[in-house]
Amino acid sequence: MSAASDILARATAQLGAEVTRPFPNSRKIHVQGSRPDIQVPMREIQQTATPTRQGPEANPPITVYDTSGPYTDPRESIDLLRGLPALRSRWIAERGDTEQLPDLSSEYGRGRAVDPTLAHLRLVKTRIPRRAKTGANVTQMHYARRGIITPEMEYIALRENMRLDACRDQALRRRHPGMNFGTALPERVTPEFVRDEVARGRAIIPANINHPESEPMIIGRNFLVKINCNLGNSALGSSITEEVEKMVWGIRWGADTVMDLSTGKNIHETREWIVRNAPVPIGTVPIYQALEKVDGKAEELDWPLFRDTLIEQAEQGVDYFTIHAGVRLPYIPLTADRVTGIVSRGGSILAKWCLAHHQENFLYTHFEEICEIMKAYDVSFSLGDGLRPGSLADANDAAQFAELETLGELTQIAWQHDVQVMIEGPGHVPMQLIKENMDKELRDCFEAPFYTLGPLTTDIAPGYDHITSAIGAAQIGWYGTAMLCYVTPKEHLGLPDKNDVRDGIIAYKIAAHAADLAKGHPAAQLRDNAVSKARFEFRWEDQFNLGLDPDKAREFHDATLPKESAKIAHFCSMCGPHFCSMKITQEVREHAQAQAEAKDDTAVAQGLKEKAEEFKRSGSEIYHKA
Amino acid sequence: MSAASDILARATAQLGAEVTRPFPNSRKIHVQGSRPDIQVPMREIQQTATPTRQGPEANPPITVYDTSGPYTDPRESIDLLRGLPALRSRWIAERGDTEQLPDLSSEYGRGRAVDPTLAHLRLVKTRIPRRAKTGANVTQMHYARRGIITPEMEYIALRENMRLDACRDQALRRRHPGMNFGTALPERVTPEFVRDEVARGRAIIPANINHPESEPMIIGRNFLVKINCNLGNSALGSSITEEVEKMVWGIRWGADTVMDLSTGKNIHETREWIVRNAPVPIGTVPIYQALEKVDGKAEELDWPLFRDTLIEQAEQGVDYFTIHAGVRLPYIPLTADRVTGIVSRGGSILAKWCLAHHQENFLYTHFEEICEIMKAYDVSFSLGDGLRPGSLADANDAAQFAELETLGELTQIAWQHDVQVMIEGPGHVPMQLIKENMDKELRDCFEAPFYTLGPLTTDIAPGYDHITSAIGAAQIGWYGTAMLCYVTPKEHLGLPDKNDVRDGIIAYKIAAHAADLAKGHPAAQLRDNAVSKARFEFRWEDQFNLGLDPDKAREFHDATLPKESAKIAHFCSMCGPHFCSMKITQEVREHAQAQAEAKDDTAVAQGLKEKAEEFKRSGSEIYHKA
Repeated sequence: MSAASDILARATAQLGAEVTRPFPNSRKIHVQGSRPDIQVPMREIQQTATPTRQGPEANPPITVYDTSGPYTDPRESIDLLRGLPALRSRWIAERGDTEQLPDLSSEYGRGRAVDPTLAHLRLVKTRIPRRAKTGANVTQMHYARRGIITPEMEYIALRENMRLDACRDQALRRRHPGMNFGTALPERVTPEFVRDEVARGRAIIPANINHPESEPMIIGRNFLVKINCNLGNSALGSSITEEVEKMVWGIRWGADTVMDLSTGKNIHETREWIVRNAPVPIGTVPIYQALEKVDGKAEELDWPLFRDTLIEQAEQGVDYFTIHAGVRLPYIPLTADRVTGIVSRGGSILAKWCLAHHQENFLYTHFEEICEIMKAYDVSFSLGDGLRPGSLADANDAAQFAELETLGELTQIAWQHDVQVMIEGPGHVPMQLIKENMDKELRDCFEAPFYTLGPLTTDIAPGYDHITSAIGAAQIGWYGTAMLCYVTPKEHLGLPDKNDVRDGIIAYKIAAHAADLAKGHPAAQLRDNAVSKARFEFRWEDQFNLGLDPDKAREFHDATLPKESAKIAHFCSMCGPHFCSMKITQEVREHAQAQAEAKDDTAVAQGLKEKAEEFKRSGSEIYHKA
Repeated sequence: MSAASDILARATAQLGAEVTRPFPNSRKIHVQGSRPDIQVPMREIQQTATPTRQGPEANPPITVYDTSGPYTDPRESIDLLRGLPALRSRWIAERGDTEQLPDLSSEYGRGRAVDPTLAHLRLVKTRIPRRAKTGANVTQMHYARRGIITPEMEYIALRENMRLDACRDQALRRRHPGMNFGTALPERVTPEFVRDEVARGRAIIPANINHPESEPMIIGRNFLVKINCNLGNSALGSSITEEVEKMVWGIRWGADTVMDLSTGKNIHETREWIVRNAPVPIGTVPIYQALEKVDGKAEELDWPLFRDTLIEQAEQGVDYFTIHAGVRLPYIPLTADRVTGIVSRGGSILAKWCLAHHQENFLYTHFEEICEIMKAYDVSFSLGDGLRPGSLADANDAAQFAELETLGELTQIAWQHDVQVMIEGPGHVPMQLIKENMDKELRDCFEAPFYTLGPLTTDIAPGYDHITSAIGAAQIGWYGTAMLCYVTPKEHLGLPDKNDVRDGIIAYKIAAHAADLAKGHPAAQLRDNAVSKARFEFRWEDQFNLGLDPDKAREFHDATLPKESAKIAHFCSMCGPHFCSMKITQEVREHAQAQAEAKDDTAVAQGLKEKAEEFKRSGSEIYHKA
């Protein structure tokens, strides 16, 4: 499938209109920070006015968090071969603790860079990698712990606030208090709050100095719940341009980070294209590529090869690495009696290595050396859960929890190096066992952000695992998970296509938002209230546009009532024009008015009675004709 | 759309092959009760064997609860014009407390029966309705309270057990304990347990004596969580045959009950077709039809007309009625300040009536007379939540909870008549407010079964409300809701088509099953474990067949790997042949074996070392080639 299209990659490096089309009735805005180059992008959704007897009553625009980068901004021109503008370059350079390298440090990277057979896969942009100066530590955690508020932190504070100050009264008027489990969401996120959370390890800012194109974001339970979208080709599918388009498609629908899990050919080049064009942090599992380098023979993996791979990817700009250092030799027998053994790819590679050598996992034994690399580029750890349960039966078992405890031990080591850490978790877990995972993670991993796959709450629905897992994801997000790794409908069955990616992301945006609401995020309910008001007032277009997926909502509505006139009709095809319940409340409000004006019960009764008569006199008509 | 097709209804009353095709590798079985005519249908899914070195190892068939009736049994011949066999007739007649009526009791029903213009819409079967003899009470609750175990109760006990006795050891070996909230699931459901739960009002058996075609089922929180599927045409769509086909389609995917919410024309005849062909209980909202009879003018509704409608439908065999008797006049002003007012159709009709007359809701004032009708046919109450919240903003507000308290008061009245009751609830509720609903319902409605719509946990995803609500449904099911009313992706946007119905049902089967697992239902995890084992052993066909939707799973798998050979491949397109993690555990198991055989740490180490060497000697190959 991909050979021909890769050759054509440079010639046809164009995104489909479908993935870059701006959202309807929306515009990209930028909130200005304390310096000219802090410009935080958000999406503002315009609303139409509510018609009233006194004339149209304006509805304020709604500001939403925007992960889509410049792609949805019609003022931007996109050139995949050149990549996105390097918005953080100056911030990184200004700090004066990094240097541009004369060449790539990774042997493998250098080899790829000069291989003439790869010319057709190379980007136009020539990029010189950066690294910390000798002895320097360039992690956001390091700055935070020294009391420095970086531009990234200020950017994030503005981003998380979503311009709530402009409508705080409105937000407060109709907002349910949250119920949290130790979360402490501030009413207003300040740069200092961001710094403090990063300093104590409760949040991370994945921001490799070699990925200056990325728009800073934060992962931590005292912030908006984030979602990750996995992409990547396998030996059986898809070309580079397809993967880049999937990335752009993913962030369009709301992916906060993207993991490139490619296991096919040209992993290096695929990643280069993705990183250069990604406004969101990119994560990888370096062991996948390392394994490719030894032709799939796990037992031939070794530390020098892996180390070179880490440096190769760090210099490309990968923002976080999944490192399965917790798959320790003594834990492997704990999986023997499982129903589904080891289901993590990384976990199984390392288990295989451990068995073949009868040695402790080399990622565990070299962990401090890995930290040295991470802090030279500010790559964050995503400490992998190689022993996560692949079935309900295996949930919360000894293998899973032994590994989690080791991840806590490794967290402390990473923090000694001021390296940022998040912890991977769940998989398949029935509802009643979910909370134990969160509680244990907070305790054993010292509140480092939790990053969970789902969990899937049942195994019986292949083809619908975006739903089995959105149920679990919403709950664990509520309990305190900082980022939810999406699952598509094709999980367990095949490689997701664009539709599956969209379905998976929307399911997870729902889960994350449901969690934000439940935790009581101060800005979360604003959008719900706006959708509901639009729905109640039959502002169909606004209802579509304010939703997570305006296209789908419009498509569904139009399936039965395609005419434009139906978009202003005071009914939909569910009930038809005579049965719509929404119109009653206008009368109810007038009715209540009578009561409010009356002073005692008799007056109330009288008021109601008069209202009833007036209602009948006016024709008792409350349903709008189409 | 429907005029032409209704005329053709009788001539073309055929179901599509798609809705009656038996499930792959499944057969319909019948569990024999204490008398020859108690034959409880279940679906048995056959599995292939696991290949081992010692030869194939059989995997036991898995028995699943089956709502699909005779439609999925290839031995049955279906004739929609004659309806299903009346399997409960003898049981009903034997009790000797009912009589066949000389004619329909409802004036409206008699009119329809003789109207020559409706001949083309009539079924072949001539059916004489039954009613309790004067002074008799024929409800299952009445029998239960007198200590009588009906055949229906025995049938239900067998059905709920799902042949667990045949595999109890297997079920216990890999089962997580549940975490419940006052639920008391027995390890084995006995007829006496069913009787006791019905007697105390904690469960209902919707089983109108005029719907002898229905296969008895129970709704209560100490049983499997059930789901309901709403169907019905509106003024804007669909014909009778389409609705019948949707019903058959709905039960195929797992709907435990079906509500016919038709609001278009020929409501009476549509219902007749549905009831006669439905092996599941049918619910309706009689006020919808009553309103049709007064041309949509709610203020013209009155008790005699409504009473005639109840009798008309009771004699057709409707098993439960949604009655919005809790929408009391004083509560209506409580909705005035809501974001979305009154969103229940029934609620809005009654609110309109109350306002127009300035009188208390006539369903409330005539409640005892309604009970008299209910007990003469054994129609169960589904006490409607006319004031349920239509947006997060309105969740758990004074209007909603005032109504809920009234539903509790009405429950006690119904129970004085031994009439069965369930309570409708939720709508749109953020996660942190869900449990309060359940707790209040249990307290204020004396543990009568709760039957909730969703709840939707966010308002921002029109087009995906099956997901926003499956999240809430799973949780409220876990907390104790007995039946979940499904929501389709088209909720708020349009009338669902067959695909939407399937999507909604599967999402709700997932939610209900996730709740069963979390509560610790003794038989629930068996199916999960079977799917997981099949998955781990690359028994692709078994994985598809054991799932909720084998067609979708197969379709997704085949989208990337269509060849038959891929169905026995030890990989899928997600990772390709070299990366599959599942194969590692075979080695891990051997490894652990060495450990188990060793007696001390040195021996363990030695054992592991030998294994490592053996592993390398054997070629270090753990991945199966395609």
